[in-house]
Amino acid sequence: MHLNDLPTPALLIDLDLLDHNIDSMSTARPGATLRSHIKAHKCTSLARHSAQRSGSDRFCCATLREMEGMVAAGLGADLLLANETLDSERLGRLVAAAVAADAHIMVAVDSDETIAAAAHAAIHGPLDVLIDVNVGLPRCGCDVTDAGRLAELARRAGLGVRGVMGYEGHVVGNADRSWRTEQVTVSMSRLQAAHDAVGGDITSAGGTGTYDLHGWANEVQAGSYLLMDTSYGQLGLPFAQATSVLATVISVNRAENFAVANAGLKAFGMDHGEPTVVGHSMFFTSDEHATFVPAPDVQVRVGDRITLWPGHIDPTMAMHERAYVMVGDEVVDIWPIDLRNW
Amino acid sequence: MHLNDLPTPALLIDLDLLDHNIDSMSTARPGATLRSHIKAHKCTSLARHSAQRSGSDRFCCATLREMEGMVAAGLGADLLLANETLDSERLGRLVAAAVAADAHIMVAVDSDETIAAAAHAAIHGPLDVLIDVNVGLPRCGCDVTDAGRLAELARRAGLGVRGVMGYEGHVVGNADRSWRTEQVTVSMSRLQAAHDAVGGDITSAGGTGTYDLHGWANEVQAGSYLLMDTSYGQLGLPFAQATSVLATVISVNRAENFAVANAGLKAFGMDHGEPTVVGHSMFFTSDEHATFVPAPDVQVRVGDRITLWPGHIDPTMAMHERAYVMVGDEVVDIWPIDLRNW
Repeated sequence: MHLNDLPTPALLIDLDLLDHNIDSMSTARPGATLRSHIKAHKCTSLARHSAQRSGSDRFCCATLREMEGMVAAGLGADLLLANETLDSERLGRLVAAAVAADAHIMVAVDSDETIAAAAHAAIHGPLDVLIDVNVGLPRCGCDVTDAGRLAELARRAGLGVRGVMGYEGHVVGNADRSWRTEQVTVSMSRLQAAHDAVGGDITSAGGTGTYDLHGWANEVQAGSYLLMDTSYGQLGLPFAQATSVLATVISVNRAENFAVANAGLKAFGMDHGEPTVVGHSMFFTSDEHATFVPAPDVQVRVGDRITLWPGHIDPTMAMHERAYVMVGDEVVDIWPIDLRNW
Repeated sequence: MHLNDLPTPALLIDLDLLDHNIDSMSTARPGATLRSHIKAHKCTSLARHSAQRSGSDRFCCATLREMEGMVAAGLGADLLLANETLDSERLGRLVAAAVAADAHIMVAVDSDETIAAAAHAAIHGPLDVLIDVNVGLPRCGCDVTDAGRLAELARRAGLGVRGVMGYEGHVVGNADRSWRTEQVTVSMSRLQAAHDAVGGDITSAGGTGTYDLHGWANEVQAGSYLLMDTSYGQLGLPFAQATSVLATVISVNRAENFAVANAGLKAFGMDHGEPTVVGHSMFFTSDEHATFVPAPDVQVRVGDRITLWPGHIDPTMAMHERAYVMVGDEVVDIWPIDLRNW
């Protein structure tokens, strides 16, 4: 199928650019030094493709739904829930499914309560944990000084303690590389102190914006590098904008010099700002519309197709049922975004 | 099922508050004076409930998917696609489906091209149109001076021209009621001029923020009044916040005085700003997390459940698979959000 025959709005993945991104990352972080993050795309087909191309089969997830889908898809060789959960029943079913599928799963814990939930789930089979440590982002993660106690608690509860994780999410998006470098050092000094008390073979940290700034942590949790967005696009990373939304111009107002395409707030994560209209200037977005100002030298017509780049890839992916995988202007595959919702 | 047994994040609709909103609207705009907008919730179960309670069975949609779902659900007695489409093949299939279901559908047109698409679709059965007129919002809609020509073009193409529509979307969200009142008058003078040239029995306009400010237009297209959001909540309208997202506290940082719940950017439309954490203060939202500052007098614990209100209801609904319909703390029904995607 050709680009022009697609119903719009349509989420497109440029396969050559995706492969460029996979290759760039695996040059810097080969094999087990990368733990690719599923939350950035929620798509088992993409995960399988990246594992086959890169040889990296460590993954992490942000939700139980993502974990369940990855195990069911046979992609659970080394799978981390890099988030806290208290749903011990559902986590228990996941442990049982992992046993049946010969998958190996871990879960992040940062409190007595999350360790208790993991211990309850571990009735159904072996479950390893990482102690999640707050390294500066105001989100999950225990205090450095509590990490050793939690590790001991987890071991006593029969859980395997594989090490520590800490996400410097307050650092990854900053455009100043030298600042990112300094801040990674600060964050990792905290994680290192926690690891001294916890032990284990895994030290997991980072994201797309800091993938090549980690010397001490032995694996990086990055996901956005695969598909990219205009926010990460400002950082000068060696990853290309591989994902776009194709839309159709449904109205043109020549007198007031704007045009309207049929992709809006329900097709783009908006927390990082407006999508970018390639070749034109964005005006504003509403539920199902992007109003834009055509480039001065371009005569936009009703029925034309335009390309938009998302500001934030993760929530954008979660808004689409499927991605059309493109080589040039031809659709070569359709990947369901099968790990949406919860 | 009780509130406490729900998996989180969960989208909740308070049935009593929804019914209050339906009743408030139908007091002001009874029967055919309301055309309830499906884009605000994308849920045929909710549409059916509101039609049964209010007696209003006129609806409008923003996408073909919404139109198809409403016809298939037997809710197509008087159904308008209040948006432009060029997908004549799919529109043709919708026309055929409407004939088979004894549904009556209309589509907005604002250009030669959208009229041509409608005319092509009308091969499959009768299709009425409204001439969509730009009344001040920089989006779809023809110039007032072009409305008569387009109506004539549509009639010559074999389409039934039922009248005009014009959405004053630049007005509906402003908190100053007197300004809204003035601007509705300005916008409706444009629509009235267009109607003079177009004719027909329908003059369709408005939204939740202007539902009671229309004297001339004979139907109002409003949707947000059903479920509401914190943006419309600032306007002093007689509609209650009937929709919330239930989340679980998964981490508490007492030293730094914040807590984290498991609902984030993938659970809330963010274009109107952060969701509101009921009883606490929002800090920031990330993909699957809401970090908030607990109220000074409240001891928040891991495992607690909190309530969040969306800033913008329409994209929020599009992010959830289902809504749990609540009476008090008990689930009385589950409504699929069945008209998501495109």
